[in-house]
Amino acid sequence: MEAAGVKTARPAGDVEALVRLAAPDMAAVNALIGRRMQSDVPVIPALADHLIAAGGKRLRPLLTLAAARALNGGGEKAHKLAAAVEFIHTATLLHDDVVDGSEMRRSKVAAHLIWGSPSSVLVGDFLFARAFELMVETDSLRALHILARASAVISEGEVLQLTRSRDLRLDQSVYLQIVQAKTAELFAAAAESGAVAAGATDAAVEALRSYGMNLGLAFQLVDDALDYASDAETLGKNAGDDFREGKVTLPLLLAIQRTRGKEDAFWDRAVGKVEQVDGDFRRARELIVGTGALQATMDLAGDYADAAKDALSILPAGEWRAALENLADFAVSRLA
Amino acid sequence: MEAAGVKTARPAGDVEALVRLAAPDMAAVNALIGRRMQSDVPVIPALADHLIAAGGKRLRPLLTLAAARALNGGGEKAHKLAAAVEFIHTATLLHDDVVDGSEMRRSKVAAHLIWGSPSSVLVGDFLFARAFELMVETDSLRALHILARASAVISEGEVLQLTRSRDLRLDQSVYLQIVQAKTAELFAAAAESGAVAAGATDAAVEALRSYGMNLGLAFQLVDDALDYASDAETLGKNAGDDFREGKVTLPLLLAIQRTRGKEDAFWDRAVGKVEQVDGDFRRARELIVGTGALQATMDLAGDYADAAKDALSILPAGEWRAALENLADFAVSRLA
Repeated sequence: MEAAGVKTARPAGDVEALVRLAAPDMAAVNALIGRRMQSDVPVIPALADHLIAAGGKRLRPLLTLAAARALNGGGEKAHKLAAAVEFIHTATLLHDDVVDGSEMRRSKVAAHLIWGSPSSVLVGDFLFARAFELMVETDSLRALHILARASAVISEGEVLQLTRSRDLRLDQSVYLQIVQAKTAELFAAAAESGAVAAGATDAAVEALRSYGMNLGLAFQLVDDALDYASDAETLGKNAGDDFREGKVTLPLLLAIQRTRGKEDAFWDRAVGKVEQVDGDFRRARELIVGTGALQATMDLAGDYADAAKDALSILPAGEWRAALENLADFAVSRLA
Repeated sequence: MEAAGVKTARPAGDVEALVRLAAPDMAAVNALIGRRMQSDVPVIPALADHLIAAGGKRLRPLLTLAAARALNGGGEKAHKLAAAVEFIHTATLLHDDVVDGSEMRRSKVAAHLIWGSPSSVLVGDFLFARAFELMVETDSLRALHILARASAVISEGEVLQLTRSRDLRLDQSVYLQIVQAKTAELFAAAAESGAVAAGATDAAVEALRSYGMNLGLAFQLVDDALDYASDAETLGKNAGDDFREGKVTLPLLLAIQRTRGKEDAFWDRAVGKVEQVDGDFRRARELIVGTGALQATMDLAGDYADAAKDALSILPAGEWRAALENLADFAVSRLA
């Protein structure tokens, strides 16, 4: 399907090739995740499993596994790092949903609405600690460094977003800085640590980091666009969530800039003050499509996807590299 | 001063000897803490500094430093681990205060009441990540393992406490399991990692871990007792906080057991349902003192302090060992 107001001439891409190639590795990682989220305190595995079993594509651990395999590595070390990456991601989702008051996650009721915010905060902490236990077992101080640093950067991005989330004059560069920190950094660290696990050269490690970073930026920008271009069923969460929370994402930011002097009162009320009435989301969506803000967001995402593919050029050609290239195309074709 | 209903014949102990001995190391650690809590996102150092500058005795990093020095170690590695330990502790305090809805911390308004719970959660995450960055820099996978494991255990203890906090039939052994996990484990890991930083023998590492564990149990039990035996000025938080939150700590637990069949309706209303009226705290305090529950809690704390001192016997005699022994006495003399 083609979403309203977005043109594309890109290859469709797919994630299936990567999922299929990585299936044996991923089975080992899933088993590891299942074992390591256990605890004698029953609410911990129950709450963790609610989110983890809901799945999603597990893109981040897939990146770790694929980076290792593409560089002729793999095995237990990569599995442990991949599980650690998924635990860090799950911990940030649990905390994010508390912070944002989100009601849905992965098509399910958010955990904090079932077990309460306190449990979500603490189980997030638990998973974060378990992630570091897994990393320690790999004996790789370099991978530990990468993922510890990424964890700090993610929190910084989250705080920055929190303090600027209703700022209608947010600079595009600050917005991209937030996306880079809160989303793309973990994609980058996931791929980078996989390359490290494979004992790759510095150049290859750097290339995989760049791939992950650009892929993460592409994914987040498309997510931001999807919030204004899809319905709840497609996305697995409510379309319009960002808007209803007064979150200034790139499509909104560009539309605000492009309607300056004309729609200021609307944006100020509906986003700045988050005082919304029926029809506000539809109006915002029309402005975002009409001003070309949605298209501009998708174009930028396309540029990042291209940069991600370029970064792979130093890798040996083969099915793993091809699958990673397909994933970059997939990132931006979800809307098309 | 002697608190109501508590007898003691123990040496007073003090923390000053340790503070004085460790002053040069602690100055380096404080400088490191100040540098590593910085961020380009202004709310992060502001919020972190609100709690960190309020100080407290920094017992946990002191344990790391003292353990290293007592075993002829010290230097940069110990400083980094000590700073990491304080960051982990600060992160758990930030999250605890959100989870408990506490209003005061270290004689100041709790951070979440100033910056909001979302910022407290995220800055906690940031400090936790920074702790791991510091640990990675020590190149000690063993210390990383100790502190990663401790972090997971702490979260488990917090969740266990959360799910059982209003359980009037909580078993004493489960209560001590909670205290061991949420408080004593970090004391143990702090001392243990200091010994590891000093390159100590396995026996010495184990001894320092045992010292920290027993010291932590003693400290928490005395804190629990202080909630029923002191005023806000002494403790730096509000006396009666635990009671008002319906937290079942050991003195309360023992008093409930010892008044079974007589005061069940009172405990059920005031603690089980947390429906409290004026005079409830005074009545609870009278029952806790009158049944000897407060004394029993202090006696148990004394036993743990003795065990902590015993564990030190394999250390070389000297001023560091003496200072650690004094600290164990201090832990239980705060109430006397």
